[in-house]
Amino acid sequence: MTVAAPLDRNLPATEDLHDWDRTHQLHPWAAMDDWRGYDHMMVDSAKGIYLWDGTGKRFIDGPGGMWCVQIGYGRREMADAIAEQVMTLPYTSPWTTTTEPSAILAKKLADMAPGDLNNVFFTTGGSTAVDTAIRTVHFMNNRLGRPDKKIVIAREKGYHGSTYLASSVTGKERDKSRFDVEKRLVRFLPDVNPYRRAEGQSVEAWCDEKVADLEAMIAEVGAENVGAFIAEPILCSGGVIVPPEGYHKRTHEICRKHDILYISDEVVTGFGRLGHWFASQEVFGITPDIITCAKGLTSGYLPLGACIISDSVMERMTDPDDAALFANGYTYSAHPVCCAAALKNIEILETENILEHVRALAPHFQKRLQALRRFDIVGDVRGMGLLGCIEGGAKTLAGERRLGAMLDEVCEEMGLLVRPLINMAVFSPPLVITRAEVDEMFDILERALEEVSRRLAAA
Amino acid sequence: MTVAAPLDRNLPATEDLHDWDRTHQLHPWAAMDDWRGYDHMMVDSAKGIYLWDGTGKRFIDGPGGMWCVQIGYGRREMADAIAEQVMTLPYTSPWTTTTEPSAILAKKLADMAPGDLNNVFFTTGGSTAVDTAIRTVHFMNNRLGRPDKKIVIAREKGYHGSTYLASSVTGKERDKSRFDVEKRLVRFLPDVNPYRRAEGQSVEAWCDEKVADLEAMIAEVGAENVGAFIAEPILCSGGVIVPPEGYHKRTHEICRKHDILYISDEVVTGFGRLGHWFASQEVFGITPDIITCAKGLTSGYLPLGACIISDSVMERMTDPDDAALFANGYTYSAHPVCCAAALKNIEILETENILEHVRALAPHFQKRLQALRRFDIVGDVRGMGLLGCIEGGAKTLAGERRLGAMLDEVCEEMGLLVRPLINMAVFSPPLVITRAEVDEMFDILERALEEVSRRLAAA
Repeated sequence: MTVAAPLDRNLPATEDLHDWDRTHQLHPWAAMDDWRGYDHMMVDSAKGIYLWDGTGKRFIDGPGGMWCVQIGYGRREMADAIAEQVMTLPYTSPWTTTTEPSAILAKKLADMAPGDLNNVFFTTGGSTAVDTAIRTVHFMNNRLGRPDKKIVIAREKGYHGSTYLASSVTGKERDKSRFDVEKRLVRFLPDVNPYRRAEGQSVEAWCDEKVADLEAMIAEVGAENVGAFIAEPILCSGGVIVPPEGYHKRTHEICRKHDILYISDEVVTGFGRLGHWFASQEVFGITPDIITCAKGLTSGYLPLGACIISDSVMERMTDPDDAALFANGYTYSAHPVCCAAALKNIEILETENILEHVRALAPHFQKRLQALRRFDIVGDVRGMGLLGCIEGGAKTLAGERRLGAMLDEVCEEMGLLVRPLINMAVFSPPLVITRAEVDEMFDILERALEEVSRRLAAA
Repeated sequence: MTVAAPLDRNLPATEDLHDWDRTHQLHPWAAMDDWRGYDHMMVDSAKGIYLWDGTGKRFIDGPGGMWCVQIGYGRREMADAIAEQVMTLPYTSPWTTTTEPSAILAKKLADMAPGDLNNVFFTTGGSTAVDTAIRTVHFMNNRLGRPDKKIVIAREKGYHGSTYLASSVTGKERDKSRFDVEKRLVRFLPDVNPYRRAEGQSVEAWCDEKVADLEAMIAEVGAENVGAFIAEPILCSGGVIVPPEGYHKRTHEICRKHDILYISDEVVTGFGRLGHWFASQEVFGITPDIITCAKGLTSGYLPLGACIISDSVMERMTDPDDAALFANGYTYSAHPVCCAAALKNIEILETENILEHVRALAPHFQKRLQALRRFDIVGDVRGMGLLGCIEGGAKTLAGERRLGAMLDEVCEEMGLLVRPLINMAVFSPPLVITRAEVDEMFDILERALEEVSRRLAAA
């Protein structure tokens, strides 16, 4: 499995890089009891679905970067398109000017997005797209003279980013940090993971319960105080939780009834992960008021996000007699180079029929995933499209953590990167993965689960 | 002045691009009474200090993108370095891995930053750097058992970005929008523009007053409730307000005395604008607790920001018995391609001695700027380094706006882009500007001011 990295740059030494990284770079989610005490894996290069570390060891990239590298690594067309835009126009202010790549991309996204979602506000990633979406809810309801209609209903385990506002609507790991969130602006619905439902309860009955949770929360808070509901089509980094049939349609209808904006956070599900540009309409049958996206938009090659707003919302924010400014935006909103990267990425997804490829390959991927249920240490497996998750079946949290860490370690030994989330391993490989590579990935995973089972039995 | 654009791409037509842009792209600070009613200037290409619009007309880029394009446009070395990193490794997760470019850049920034500012958290731009800085204040004071010590003292007209949290500490244009801000977390000091001081008051006496404003605010709120003071070394987009001698040192001492963190927002002043990597220490003699930066870090070629935190703050956030996570960060934190762009940008600034060039050219730039005082319609001119501002001298706000808009229009006719801020025009051209180009820029400006004076006199 170990081969030389495709590019070899000998300077500086890996140990120096680790030293500088440990000493000077604070990473996201660093454990503050030991923040200079450990080394992050040094990723040196990548090609297709493979990464190489600083020692030249090769890995299959199970998480696909971080749910984002749709077209795979090492695409010369991307390097060329990016370099060309850098030479033509690397920057111009989105406040006062516009550019060819951003205008074309705005048009393309409006065409791809469902219904009347025709208005694209570019950001620098998912967090700033969500921050913008929630600020848009504030703007609209202030304009409509409903300044109290601002509370966002979100979901336990949902992940929406980490600006102060985005992290405030994130239901995941809230209590493990010492950061503040704005609790007054948000309410959380209880866990939506059907795996955790009561024994003997049908999925249908459980879905009724989850929908009733939303209705009860609106009744409790008062519809006049609820500005928006935010949900991922599939709740991703909280554990690839696939909603039961009808869940999104029914929650969407409830929002419509109470004039609550529905924000669909498609940062992970957008751009082909489920075989469609966006999942809200094509997969789940709803047309939200706002879609947030990022990641797959550029396949992670460059930072870019977007908050796509419906005409209906825009019209309600607009008044010919009210010269209020949409005073939101970033130096790097609509960055011409990032927009050019997104356009080339979309072109690759189109010309190589990658969405069709995902739809054709997904059944095999999901079949191999479901086959992992045969391991006793596996509690649940679930997924959709080229998205999957294994949840450990240990009895205690400590046991779950040990299992997750051990699976991570064994997979790494065997040349597969997984992204351990406590007791879960998630899979969202580059969408260009072939059937043979899917088999290679799941073959390693099976061997790793056998090895972990052996080690746990021996312990 | 009109020459053909250096690259000519004929497809699609400029009118289609304008149509798509107007119909589908919501721009930062769009006027919501007329948001599809006007066209943004289409910038087509750029080289050196010049931009070309869709019609092939050439402009000197007075604002330097938006205070960011330090090395000028069209740098082949940047395109090559960016393309190389795209081919080697376009993405990897900063949560679990690290990369050569981000480790080297973290080390470089720690070396450049003053004092013990050794810890670099990468973001996607200035807004997310400020969001992270303020969240860091929350984290530290929660850890220290001082959950009330969170209020941020900021300054009227200061600009710090537009995430919900960054916009909450921004003192500029707060009332012109319908977005919410978190008022409970912030207090504003009154206008720090010496041009607006009482007639007959000396700058020294006025500085005493501004310093006293901070002390009075701390006394009013209670030092036990004040977490941080945030200030730009030069208050930039609020009007290039240069502080009087001693202002920053004295406010910094007051913060030290009350254990209030000093956040220096160097998004504009960093990376050579004033002839130094950072201005806090080299120009103003203070070592802040946190420096935020972006823009010049990559010369705007790609989105990247950083929040640089002192060892002292990090130590106070750390406890071997407290496994809290620094649960903040973005998919695109430490993006390897953006970090590679920053490294090449810094290399260019170093090898071409651009900081020395700025220090050598600044006196001439400032002399030409000061000479504009001879126009009656100019109220004030001020600046430092390659940063300058003209403030109109009209008597009414309507008059000021008319003057600002007219100057903008006339400059545009004459081939110079300025960035009108109501009654102000600001200048922050690419730092590679030559003495001859500085003269070209100010020659146009003088002709434009003559023309505006003529038109106003005729009206």
